[in-house]
Amino acid sequence: MRLHLSTWQEVEAYLDRSRAILVPIGSTEQHGPNGLLGTDALCPEIIAEHAAKDEDILVGPTLNVGCAQHHLGFAGSMTLRPSTMISVMMDWVASLEQHGFERIYWFNGHGGNVATIEAAFAEVYSKRSFSLSHPNSDLRLRLQNWWRLPSVAEFCAKVFPIGEGSHVTASEVAVTYFAYPEHIKRVEMSPKIAPSGEFRDAEHYRGQFPDGRIGSDPSQASPEIGKQIVEVAAAALAKDFRAFADDI
Amino acid sequence: MRLHLSTWQEVEAYLDRSRAILVPIGSTEQHGPNGLLGTDALCPEIIAEHAAKDEDILVGPTLNVGCAQHHLGFAGSMTLRPSTMISVMMDWVASLEQHGFERIYWFNGHGGNVATIEAAFAEVYSKRSFSLSHPNSDLRLRLQNWWRLPSVAEFCAKVFPIGEGSHVTASEVAVTYFAYPEHIKRVEMSPKIAPSGEFRDAEHYRGQFPDGRIGSDPSQASPEIGKQIVEVAAAALAKDFRAFADDI
Amino acid sequence: MRLHLSTWQEVEAYLDRSRAILVPIGSTEQHGPNGLLGTDALCPEIIAEHAAKDEDILVGPTLNVGCAQHHLGFAGSMTLRPSTMISVMMDWVASLEQHGFERIYWFNGHGGNVATIEAAFAEVYSKRSFSLSHPNSDLRLRLQNWWRLPSVAEFCAKVFPIGEGSHVTASEVAVTYFAYPEHIKRVEMSPKIAPSGEFRDAEHYRGQFPDGRIGSDPSQASPEIGKQIVEVAAAALAKDFRAFADDI
Amino acid sequence: MRLHLSTWQEVEAYLDRSRAILVPIGSTEQHGPNGLLGTDALCPEIIAEHAAKDEDILVGPTLNVGCAQHHLGFAGSMTLRPSTMISVMMDWVASLEQHGFERIYWFNGHGGNVATIEAAFAEVYSKRSFSLSHPNSDLRLRLQNWWRLPSVAEFCAKVFPIGEGSHVTASEVAVTYFAYPEHIKRVEMSPKIAPSGEFRDAEHYRGQFPDGRIGSDPSQASPEIGKQIVEVAAAALAKDFRAFADDI
Amino acid sequence: MRLHLSTWQEVEAYLDRSRAILVPIGSTEQHGPNGLLGTDALCPEIIAEHAAKDEDILVGPTLNVGCAQHHLGFAGSMTLRPSTMISVMMDWVASLEQHGFERIYWFNGHGGNVATIEAAFAEVYSKRSFSLSHPNSDLRLRLQNWWRLPSVAEFCAKVFPIGEGSHVTASEVAVTYFAYPEHIKRVEMSPKIAPSGEFRDAEHYRGQFPDGRIGSDPSQASPEIGKQIVEVAAAALAKDFRAFADDI
Amino acid sequence: MRLHLSTWQEVEAYLDRSRAILVPIGSTEQHGPNGLLGTDALCPEIIAEHAAKDEDILVGPTLNVGCAQHHLGFAGSMTLRPSTMISVMMDWVASLEQHGFERIYWFNGHGGNVATIEAAFAEVYSKRSFSLSHPNSDLRLRLQNWWRLPSVAEFCAKVFPIGEGSHVTASEVAVTYFAYPEHIKRVEMSPKIAPSGEFRDAEHYRGQFPDGRIGSDPSQASPEIGKQIVEVAAAALAKDFRAFADDI
Repeated sequence: MRLHLSTWQEVEAYLDRSRAILVPIGSTEQHGPNGLLGTDALCPEIIAEHAAKDEDILVGPTLNVGCAQHHLGFAGSMTLRPSTMISVMMDWVASLEQHGFERIYWFNGHGGNVATIEAAFAEVYSKRSFSLSHPNSDLRLRLQNWWRLPSVAEFCAKVFPIGEGSHVTASEVAVTYFAYPEHIKRVEMSPKIAPSGEFRDAEHYRGQFPDGRIGSDPSQASPEIGKQIVEVAAAALAKDFRAFADDI
Repeated sequence: MRLHLSTWQEVEAYLDRSRAILVPIGSTEQHGPNGLLGTDALCPEIIAEHAAKDEDILVGPTLNVGCAQHHLGFAGSMTLRPSTMISVMMDWVASLEQHGFERIYWFNGHGGNVATIEAAFAEVYSKRSFSLSHPNSDLRLRLQNWWRLPSVAEFCAKVFPIGEGSHVTASEVAVTYFAYPEHIKRVEMSPKIAPSGEFRDAEHYRGQFPDGRIGSDPSQASPEIGKQIVEVAAAALAKDFRAFADDI
Repeated sequence: MRLHLSTWQEVEAYLDRSRAILVPIGSTEQHGPNGLLGTDALCPEIIAEHAAKDEDILVGPTLNVGCAQHHLGFAGSMTLRPSTMISVMMDWVASLEQHGFERIYWFNGHGGNVATIEAAFAEVYSKRSFSLSHPNSDLRLRLQNWWRLPSVAEFCAKVFPIGEGSHVTASEVAVTYFAYPEHIKRVEMSPKIAPSGEFRDAEHYRGQFPDGRIGSDPSQASPEIGKQIVEVAAAALAKDFRAFADDI
Repeated sequence: MRLHLSTWQEVEAYLDRSRAILVPIGSTEQHGPNGLLGTDALCPEIIAEHAAKDEDILVGPTLNVGCAQHHLGFAGSMTLRPSTMISVMMDWVASLEQHGFERIYWFNGHGGNVATIEAAFAEVYSKRSFSLSHPNSDLRLRLQNWWRLPSVAEFCAKVFPIGEGSHVTASEVAVTYFAYPEHIKRVEMSPKIAPSGEFRDAEHYRGQFPDGRIGSDPSQASPEIGKQIVEVAAAALAKDFRAFADDI
Repeated sequence: MRLHLSTWQEVEAYLDRSRAILVPIGSTEQHGPNGLLGTDALCPEIIAEHAAKDEDILVGPTLNVGCAQHHLGFAGSMTLRPSTMISVMMDWVASLEQHGFERIYWFNGHGGNVATIEAAFAEVYSKRSFSLSHPNSDLRLRLQNWWRLPSVAEFCAKVFPIGEGSHVTASEVAVTYFAYPEHIKRVEMSPKIAPSGEFRDAEHYRGQFPDGRIGSDPSQASPEIGKQIVEVAAAALAKDFRAFADDI
Repeated sequence: MRLHLSTWQEVEAYLDRSRAILVPIGSTEQHGPNGLLGTDALCPEIIAEHAAKDEDILVGPTLNVGCAQHHLGFAGSMTLRPSTMISVMMDWVASLEQHGFERIYWFNGHGGNVATIEAAFAEVYSKRSFSLSHPNSDLRLRLQNWWRLPSVAEFCAKVFPIGEGSHVTASEVAVTYFAYPEHIKRVEMSPKIAPSGEFRDAEHYRGQFPDGRIGSDPSQASPEIGKQIVEVAAAALAKDFRAFADDI
């Protein structure tokens, strides 16, 4: 059940069944020669929607531009400053909390978001902790990176034993190819496996990783493997979300 | 051409042809008994994607949660504070500007966003105006509400002479039904045409408009009419965007 | 009754009679060759004080620097960034609200303020809407542009059928000439009626409108006509304010 | 020369003669049983306008609501949070600086503003100091409290040897009575001289100083003495401003 | 009793005895040719720890970087913007207040902090004053500059009748020499007594005061005199803190 | 070489040799029944000072209050909101950068700081990345947690094979006991090894971990083992810092 494709009455009925919501959170940033700029927003969205077919999971709007300053050297990449993203997440949480949501599961597609998501959690909790007598609500925030779900990492390692990499991974490109087959790109890349390393700001990143990839050979991606990853991940997600939603 | 479904090289190539980008901007808020919570984000997205089929328009990510505090009395509605939305738009503009975009066309689906979008424009321009010797760039921001495009308002008035209304309009529901036929809802509404009036905060809104509609009878919406509206609007959009993009 | 010329006991007594206050809000920005930099702050102040002679209206301090980044190309113009103006309005409202004011009528003299005033309203209301159980108070904010008062627009169109314009209007100059006859300027302007059009930042504005006027011939302004406008506007204001104050 | 009663061309001409501007800054807060809520904004405005009659001083708009949280226990008092006031002063300075003003003389009427004005100066200077190679401009900010001008303090002590006090001083009330004789109030006060002491927040202030005065007997104020104070202060101001304006 | 060298149980026990805490607040900024960059943070820390040996005073963490933009022309100087320091102090107060502390004594070592500390106090109090019905707590904030403690100023004037100065004072250097004898520097300075005057931003300060000192001859400092100052100041502090802590 | 115990001339001389600085960053928060509230600030400070005895490392001021909202249920704990900490780190970096520092090594003692430190890095880099043509400087920020230094983790695991835990670790308590032997506490704890688990806000933390410890038995800590840890860590730090400082 996707929030933006539901009526408010349907959400109200869902709230009678559950106090938990899933929010896909990603990024809009370069994904090398054959990956889509929206990859990190699309992956959690695709997996969450797949999981929600069989399970009673409410999938909220996707936070589609995240923290990606280091990618700004490549056309089309966009970023929020971390302080802006904290404000955005504060407002989303405040909106959801006043409807009665008490479990907000942030399903993340971008490693560069992790620090700021956790900082935003601490910002939300700080308000509560500053006055310890917070009434009634039992708000809980959880971050889950889709590639860290139990069994997903193993599965990806198995299907891409070489060249999975850490940015523009073969897996994430495969997931998007499964969902958007009309956007599959065939591109020669050289070197076949991109270099690995650290990065700082956008200028530095571009200097280190000229085509945007880190450590990966995403030319291995195919919609068929993408489908398998989505299925493995959706099953793991459903279980993880349910445990979070049902935890008292 | 949708940015999040493109590679950075494709966007780089686009920038050789044009310095203009379209950004759909909407809201996630109740749309009465038969409208979708995502209506205001979906409508500009749907129309923009339709227009981009035939025209060389780069459609950026959708800013999907806007200023909708007055809808928070209905489950699922979400809002940014205006100050947060200004920060978000500042960051999106800064990201796009450094890639060389100089025409940012905000294609809006939500009346409640208008004031804050214009305030954000003034915030962006203030930075430039505080130091009048801004170098090189010729940044221009434009707001267009899809229902205000030339010929669209007339068309909607023609197909819905009664009960178009001002929130949960028959037209906007029709647009989403065209694009998401599997989410068409058949709901009895009473009164058939909702009351009209003003509103303040969420509590007040809910008191005035118990099912969320203002002045409308959205049960008239159909995917067939939605298709016609999308076609009219997409043609008008293509022309308006082109004029903006080509203006020197 | 002007707040800044009253004692706190007089305001306390007023609060026993009414929960409504009028706040003039304007701008400090160029008004062409014969208009005063303070025009947009002075006009609502002049009209409000005129109305308050015969009616029990409490006129608060004037917010005299508003959103006018586009005028910074002309000496003496000043601006707040929209985000600053939102903070200011939040603090003014919080101050007034804790005294028991529940109707704050922002009487505006500057078109460029409208978007930010409305954004500030939404910021104020957001705080209330985020926690729907707001206690006791029935806070209402209202924006009224003096030139949009019923009958004022018609009257101005009648006395200035040509060259009223949209910035440095003949009407607003006339209002200030009535109140400040010692500051009447006689200046030749060329062209007699200024060009019309849109504008972005300060550099662009100055390029489009070299002497600052948009679409107007303010040399028509006279203190006699100003007096008439003030009287028409003050009567309309008194009625509009009373309706707002008395609305339950 | 008052900025808001001048045209932009007149300010431009002034800038050819001088790079200095005076900005009255005050507060809107209770001034006891016979003082006006606007006293602290009116006093610097009155004195500055008096000085500007004979001297070439450009008097900017008055910043009329300052830092007065401690007065919120009395009806009509208003405040900015210090952080808001810093933002406002940043924007006013940025506006004036880009016109070429390099000497901004803040002429203050409220003791409670002093700390925040100085903090705002440090905020402005911090931006410059963070990058030591600031180009071209020689921006200088100066705070002057009107009652601290050379000779003013002595004069006030002479005319009010007893009961000048520190809030609702006999002097400041006299200054406003001179300028606004129609607002002179005759009120019995008890005790004749108010208590002295410290204060914290609004609740505490009201408890300590039930009618708002601190250490003063403002019933001594008269328009005649007010006139004398204004003349002494205006002469001192003209000299002090000139020294600041001419300092290289 | 130093908070950072105590356990939470020890602080809990202290709260049973007292609701008062001392927070040293200083700066990290150049102190001329023979003074330490940490002087202004070290002095209140040294004196407070000395006082706490014999008295039941809880000494909190030292806020060690303050408002020192004007010193940024000298290597090693650091600053917060005033707006940042206000946020920091808001958070420290909120933390302490929720533990039950109601008397926070800010023991300051840097003149440049005074304005911002007072602005921060007003920011804290504003929150309370905006809603006058603040529950239960009796929060009080106090600023004390160590060199302004009763008897300290006289003592310093006696031991350094010439060349005490206003920045890099002989006294403050002596205090640090007493506590950190291994960091005593013997440096020739010329002129022996530094010039006096005002300053604005970092570039201006460096131009006026080439070695960083203002009006002082800190070569007179010795650990022996430092010891005496610390003893005088610690005794005065203990008394002042006790009066604040015990005031009801 | 400790910055706050140096003169500006000494720092200037250091800058001729190196562009790198180490900044200890910690927290002020409960550390169970026998750990000090300052543990997380003291540990990096102690180790850094130890390393700086033999190596040319400039140790800046300690950022001693970090992100610890979850500990506010225990007396004496303090926190910054993450957004405040980002502002603080922005100002510290801006200060250091303008002196010419280009390698800032944040030596951290608190796991709860990690996310916000990384978010602050992204905030700093965002400013650079928004305008890709940043001049001259080669700013690099690095986070190192002392317990993650090569060989330290192994050493701690060896000396405390059981009950090292994750909060109030035996190792961190030992480090402070070595440096502050007069503050060694002997406390009975029950259970001997504290429970493990996750936490959210302060109320939740206190409920899960009644005496503050997580998974640890810090009664094993001794100054002798603390000394060994400090020596191992200081050697590892010296090497790691040197590599960072010398990297081109």
